[in-house]
Amino acid sequence: MALSGAPLRVCIVGSGNCPFTYIWDGKKNAEGAWHNNDRGSAVAKIIGNNVKKLQKFASTVKMWVFEENINGRKLTDIINKEHENVKYLPGYKLPDNVVAVPNLNEAVQDADLLVFVIPHQFIHKVCDEITGRVPKKALGITLIKGIDEGPEGLKLISDIIREKLGIDISVLMGANIANEVAAEKFCETTIGSKILENGLLFKELLQTPNFRITVVDDADTVELCGALKNIVAVGAGFCDGLRCGDNTKAAVIRLGLMEMIAFARIFCKGQVSTATFLESCGVADLITTCYGGRNRRVAEAFVKTGKTIEELEQEMLNGQKLQGPQTSAEVHRILKQKGMVDKFPLFTAVYQICYEGKPVKEMISCLQSHPEHI
Amino acid sequence: MALSGAPLRVCIVGSGNCPFTYIWDGKKNAEGAWHNNDRGSAVAKIIGNNVKKLQKFASTVKMWVFEENINGRKLTDIINKEHENVKYLPGYKLPDNVVAVPNLNEAVQDADLLVFVIPHQFIHKVCDEITGRVPKKALGITLIKGIDEGPEGLKLISDIIREKLGIDISVLMGANIANEVAAEKFCETTIGSKILENGLLFKELLQTPNFRITVVDDADTVELCGALKNIVAVGAGFCDGLRCGDNTKAAVIRLGLMEMIAFARIFCKGQVSTATFLESCGVADLITTCYGGRNRRVAEAFVKTGKTIEELEQEMLNGQKLQGPQTSAEVHRILKQKGMVDKFPLFTAVYQICYEGKPVKEMISCLQSHPEHI
Repeated sequence: MALSGAPLRVCIVGSGNCPFTYIWDGKKNAEGAWHNNDRGSAVAKIIGNNVKKLQKFASTVKMWVFEENINGRKLTDIINKEHENVKYLPGYKLPDNVVAVPNLNEAVQDADLLVFVIPHQFIHKVCDEITGRVPKKALGITLIKGIDEGPEGLKLISDIIREKLGIDISVLMGANIANEVAAEKFCETTIGSKILENGLLFKELLQTPNFRITVVDDADTVELCGALKNIVAVGAGFCDGLRCGDNTKAAVIRLGLMEMIAFARIFCKGQVSTATFLESCGVADLITTCYGGRNRRVAEAFVKTGKTIEELEQEMLNGQKLQGPQTSAEVHRILKQKGMVDKFPLFTAVYQICYEGKPVKEMISCLQSHPEHI
Repeated sequence: MALSGAPLRVCIVGSGNCPFTYIWDGKKNAEGAWHNNDRGSAVAKIIGNNVKKLQKFASTVKMWVFEENINGRKLTDIINKEHENVKYLPGYKLPDNVVAVPNLNEAVQDADLLVFVIPHQFIHKVCDEITGRVPKKALGITLIKGIDEGPEGLKLISDIIREKLGIDISVLMGANIANEVAAEKFCETTIGSKILENGLLFKELLQTPNFRITVVDDADTVELCGALKNIVAVGAGFCDGLRCGDNTKAAVIRLGLMEMIAFARIFCKGQVSTATFLESCGVADLITTCYGGRNRRVAEAFVKTGKTIEELEQEMLNGQKLQGPQTSAEVHRILKQKGMVDKFPLFTAVYQICYEGKPVKEMISCLQSHPEHI
């Protein structure tokens, strides 16, 4: 779809806070949500600066901010006057052309380009609220990591947005920790777009000298990488807990990558290119997640403390759910349905260790007859 | 080439010592050579056990051992009586069917399968010594990491063996630290064979439940990975020294991988499959080298101490040459010749920082216009 003529108006849906947490489920906001949300302000900084330089884009960028009271002042007022999200990305000035808007419908209603950066559990609610308000010719991109885990099984966030809003949607995934992006440390990311032209438009909007982008057309693969890597990171954390050594950890990460590829081939309707796993969304994000990252950290603690995943979520994550084990359960359900459990020994071992009491020491023996080596 | 009939006789060329060091160049043996040599005994342990179970192979395995005097006893006598390489892989029993042979010609002369595990700098001398003694129908495999850096430029070790002995030669590369292999910790490796059938034969000889093998047919790619990864590890070490953060390090590793692929496409005469870089020889070995490994370690010290690479080689490696910088120089010469320096910003930056006084801080700015993102 080509958009031409007037400068394109950009709206960032999400800003740094976790709007519906208290309202919807009463749970305390925790690390993962913050992480996800910091990205809202980090990306606002990039977009605000880029649109100033490019005539193609309208110079004012709307950012939907869930209103909060900060020491007696409205958060949107603080952002619009002091150009800093003092609560969620303190210390980094936002460009003055980024305007915080507290009303979601008002923020999105005349947008040509929508950038989604809310925590994944709120995507249904947000989309439901703006259905019919978003112009059909608008294009979206989601930076939301995670997959939907509803009763209907594994579902991509982009599919939810696409179905609810009826717009074309791209995805952006990579080794991108929000604080490092905001600090303008050099990093890479991957945009996946079913319509390559749309991905290239978002690349123009988002690329900077220190935030480097490649665009590929198997968007579902890109998005799936962001979810599946967390299962592998749990396996890598088990390795660390078992003090397996460098060789074994590298083998677990690589076999995890091969299972990510194999699973993508089963799950994605479109093409799945091996090369996509060599992009930032694939191998790079996997490496950082398996060497840093909280899935790895909690999994290591699981081995060393003997506590359950639930106990560790309470202790280490303020009760927030760890994504790796949850995703392993969703994936396991699909593999069982298709009779393909045997083809995914690592994914299966992670699931069984987390949920079925399988001894963690058996993870490695499960890999001894991996289909990769037959 | 099919070998059939009588059981196949295996000879391991290399055992745990560094035979020609003192004789040829008077330099003290150092970490890298030892590392390479430990693999001789580690692989002897695997082969010795495997041939006992498989009728296809002769039950006695010859291992060429450069004779040394250990407390008044010959090393070959110790190995043949006590079945332990007390000097180079102490604490691990070798199977009693592995027979140490001090004479190189006698060791190789009736071999059907030759396994090369000597340090790479001795390959010319060893091949020259056995030329004409090795049956033409024999098959070889090299576990030797590194490339030849003679006056004729970058040359694969397998090509040297192939040319000098006139036999088909496979390569074995992967994330395989000798001690972990000997301790039977789970790991993977990759065999590259131009004739797939030969690679599969070596897989039978070498695979165990904890040493898992995949076979691919772009052998040159497999071998090149083992050399080029060291350049990337130097870049990763610079990142660590500069405290770049996880995002940036992941980007450097990934861009390094993309340059490895691009360089293989220029250098290799045969096919270069992207999938080969997802094997153990590619991404797995790269990860361990960029997170552990001495190229990374010395490069980090280079940034933190301000000393030259030569000074650090003296201090940290007993004067042995670090492979990453050397390989970057060889690669740079080829890229310059072909006018392709611009297409390899990371390889080039590593070379210029190591040898031309380029400030290490500029490594990252060199990546800002990487061809991957254009």
